[in-house]
Amino acid sequence: MNQERLYTLAQDFRDLQDRIVRGIEAVEAEHAGLTFVDDNWDRPGGGGGRTRVLTGGQVWERGGVNFSQVEGDASPALKAQMQTNADRFWAAGVSLVLHPNNPHVPIVHMNVRHFALSDGTSWFGGGIDMTPHYVNPKEATQFHRVLKEACNAHRCADYHQFKLEADDYFFVPHRQETRGVGGIFFDHLGREGMSQTEWQANKDFVFAVGDAFLPAYLPLVHANVKRPFSSQEREWQLHRRGRYVEFNLVWDRGTRFGLVSNGRTESILMSLPPQVKWTYDLEAGPEEQDTLDWLKKGIDWAGTPQKP
Amino acid sequence: MNQERLYTLAQDFRDLQDRIVRGIEAVEAEHAGLTFVDDNWDRPGGGGGRTRVLTGGQVWERGGVNFSQVEGDASPALKAQMQTNADRFWAAGVSLVLHPNNPHVPIVHMNVRHFALSDGTSWFGGGIDMTPHYVNPKEATQFHRVLKEACNAHRCADYHQFKLEADDYFFVPHRQETRGVGGIFFDHLGREGMSQTEWQANKDFVFAVGDAFLPAYLPLVHANVKRPFSSQEREWQLHRRGRYVEFNLVWDRGTRFGLVSNGRTESILMSLPPQVKWTYDLEAGPEEQDTLDWLKKGIDWAGTPQKP
Repeated sequence: MNQERLYTLAQDFRDLQDRIVRGIEAVEAEHAGLTFVDDNWDRPGGGGGRTRVLTGGQVWERGGVNFSQVEGDASPALKAQMQTNADRFWAAGVSLVLHPNNPHVPIVHMNVRHFALSDGTSWFGGGIDMTPHYVNPKEATQFHRVLKEACNAHRCADYHQFKLEADDYFFVPHRQETRGVGGIFFDHLGREGMSQTEWQANKDFVFAVGDAFLPAYLPLVHANVKRPFSSQEREWQLHRRGRYVEFNLVWDRGTRFGLVSNGRTESILMSLPPQVKWTYDLEAGPEEQDTLDWLKKGIDWAGTPQKP
Repeated sequence: MNQERLYTLAQDFRDLQDRIVRGIEAVEAEHAGLTFVDDNWDRPGGGGGRTRVLTGGQVWERGGVNFSQVEGDASPALKAQMQTNADRFWAAGVSLVLHPNNPHVPIVHMNVRHFALSDGTSWFGGGIDMTPHYVNPKEATQFHRVLKEACNAHRCADYHQFKLEADDYFFVPHRQETRGVGGIFFDHLGREGMSQTEWQANKDFVFAVGDAFLPAYLPLVHANVKRPFSSQEREWQLHRRGRYVEFNLVWDRGTRFGLVSNGRTESILMSLPPQVKWTYDLEAGPEEQDTLDWLKKGIDWAGTPQKP
């Protein structure tokens, strides 16, 4: 492991966290000025992180932007998940989830990360995906086009492939629906081996994804944050958040791996919504059914989206 | 598989469901008279069930009592979970979860079931466990003693062992706390082989557990349902429900198996609370901390409970 390169990388992730937090705080400032609270923590065994949490904002009911840089002995669980025999690992990254107050503003998730093992292999991973409570196809297109542009500017990235991977990853089998309108997802980028130039190119792309988050998401926040909403729409939002919980706790590999491998629970579960409802066999009205009809794999969001 | 015996068993489970639902409805009737709604369903591949759901009662905000009798080809996932090569399975049982309105009334869960395989093996399983939002040690003792008496009346049952198994099963590793004050849990009862007499003895015990549910739980409902509660106590309840969700979706083998093996999602997730909250790094007041101190394995609830 190239310690100097990793040290710089961790600093860069931390700076990315700062840029994103500033961007979110600027939006909150237009409404009420609530700011993030920082929670610095150490990991027993090596490394630590800085969890930044927004609670009860005017725009976001809950938001968490987490930076972590952890290292240590590779546990059997980690070796199995990473398919490696290496004894030591190093990992760093930024992840975020935002849960808005207004049901017309989508939930959003972003994660960028780097993994390095003591056997010399290393790779990048990450993605951005959006979960509207009510799908607006035009806004989903707008969102996907920003991600597509970010990919197209980097030779190591393939929007088409990464979009398909997001379709597959952010799918809830027991509901037979996608988590939202997807986005991009990639993992093991460069794992087959990277020259210094390739490593740098992959890193540049990953940070471009991190920096695409605000321009991909904030326009949709501004467009919807002042829209009035009914109590029925709020109820639907609380139920859609339930689906989000189901995905994260049952299917999300990162969340599950963190929980079963003794990760920092509060930082991992920062992704859960502040308030949630479940109702047996909830009935969907016409607007809600329209959204359900859009929660499918294979929709050409960046082109001309059509219901399957 | 002894089809006639299984047919009768399924009927008996259905009757147990009826007895329990009547007992719960009688309590609701003292307050507002809300009754359960029935949902009969068929399982593609064989069998079906009757899910009975109470929503928005005066005593229980949500209650579900589920009967199912399913059969069919054993999937690879089922074979792996059941550690068998048998091609066909048959399963029936009753399961319930009740989420009260009043934070001083505990959440409760009960499940009794029978599994039979085409290789001739069969077994019983089940248990009852209670999850108070605020632990009252005297009430936990009262609850455990009813379960202990039910076990002591049956030679095939061992309260001590089943209590330890509940401690282990209803544990949330990522929170390092038990789900509640436990109860009893048993599985594979008779799997090593049962004579007709032993089968009957095990069945009698399992139904004794089912019928111990109302006398174990209802006295604690009556004792607490009219207690006033503060908004702070309600908040704590909503957060404890979050822990319940975490256990069920991350750790509960039955829930996870059902979801990944294409079970009936609405009946499986009937156990989830109607309203839930998560807060980053929630602070516990003195009363709440007292409860957390009791959420440990190894407490002698049926004897003289002491904090570890």
